[in-house]
Amino acid sequence: MRRFMDDMTFRETEKERTLLWIEPGPAVLVSTCNCGRNNVMTITWTICLDFFGHIALCTNDWNYSYEALRENRECVVAVPPASMAETVVKIGAVSGRDTDKFEKFGLTALPASKVGAPLIGEALANLECRVKELDEKHSLVILEVIKVWEKENPEDTRLFHAFGDGTFAADGEKMNLRRFMENKMPPGL
Amino acid sequence: MRRFMDDMTFRETEKERTLLWIEPGPAVLVSTCNCGRNNVMTITWTICLDFFGHIALCTNDWNYSYEALRENRECVVAVPPASMAETVVKIGAVSGRDTDKFEKFGLTALPASKVGAPLIGEALANLECRVKELDEKHSLVILEVIKVWEKENPEDTRLFHAFGDGTFAADGEKMNLRRFMENKMPPGL
Repeated sequence: MRRFMDDMTFRETEKERTLLWIEPGPAVLVSTCNCGRNNVMTITWTICLDFFGHIALCTNDWNYSYEALRENRECVVAVPPASMAETVVKIGAVSGRDTDKFEKFGLTALPASKVGAPLIGEALANLECRVKELDEKHSLVILEVIKVWEKENPEDTRLFHAFGDGTFAADGEKMNLRRFMENKMPPGL
Repeated sequence: MRRFMDDMTFRETEKERTLLWIEPGPAVLVSTCNCGRNNVMTITWTICLDFFGHIALCTNDWNYSYEALRENRECVVAVPPASMAETVVKIGAVSGRDTDKFEKFGLTALPASKVGAPLIGEALANLECRVKELDEKHSLVILEVIKVWEKENPEDTRLFHAFGDGTFAADGEKMNLRRFMENKMPPGL
C-alpha cells in the first residue's frame, strides 16, 4: 500500500489482475520519462497477449512518446475513470514535443517503484511495464507488466471505451457470468 | 442492403467503420467454416492496427477454430449486443471439436459475400475478414477486414466488455467528445 495523498492511495496487486484493466478494452494513458521529462499519451488500441501480464499497444513513431519507449524500454499504462474522459481526449490531441502535458492537464505524477515513468494519481490503476519488443511491422509495442497498482476507494469506478469517431461509452450494467465459464477461468482471478 | 429475415437486415458500410466495432474492445464472436462445417468461438482479446481495416485477435492452437483459420485463411468477426452476453460466454466454454455451436446456441448462420465463414444473424455487425498472417510467437492472428455489415434497427445497441474474471460490463453513458479531437479524426468517420 502506498499513500501519496488522501485520495491517492494505491494498493499493489497481482500481475494476473492486468486482465481486469486491459481485457475490457478501455481508453488508457501511457506515461514515459525521457531525459528527466515526463510525458503521457492516450492510447485506445490495446490487447492482452496472455494470462501472465503480457499486453500490447498499437502505436509507432507517429507518436512523440515512441522515442521514449524505444530509448528507455519502460512505461506506465494508467487506466482512467470515465469521469476523466474529456481530459484523456484532450491529452490525445496535443503532442508532448511542445507541451508539458502533466502540467497542462493537472495530472499528478507519482513515483513508480520499478520504472522511471510516473504513475498517474488520478487513474484507477497503474501498470508498471517493461518494453519487451517493438514490432514495427505491425506497429505493436509488446509490454510485460511488472507491477500493478490499484486505487483504494475511487469515486468513479467506470472505465470508458473509444469508438474511433469521437464518441465514447462509459461502463454501464455489470453482469457476473462466472458460473458459465468456471472451466475457463484464468489463474489468480 | 441484404434482408435475410424481418429482424436480420444488414447494410454494407465502409471498411473504415471497423474502428466503431473493434476499438471499443467488445467481446466478439469469430465464425469459421472448415470442411463445410461452421464453427464459432468467443474472443475478448482484439486490437485495431490501423485506420484501414487491419485488426488482430489474440488466439493460438489452444482454440479448435485456429485450425480453420490456418486452413481457410478467412473468418467473420461478429459483434454481439449486450443482451447476448450469457450466450457468448457459453459459446466460449465449449469446443467446436465435439459440438455444433450454431445449433446448440440457436445462432443463425447467414451467407457472407466474400468468405466461406457465415455471418451471425443475431450480431450487431459482421466483419468479413481475410487472415493476413499468423504470428504464432505472439499468438496474434492479423486480419484484414474486407466487408462490414451493420444491422438495421437493432433492439439492443450496447456492446459489452469482458474483465477476465467472469464479470462483464455493457456500454452505459455515451459521450460525444469529437469537438476535442477534430485534428485526430481518422478518414471516413
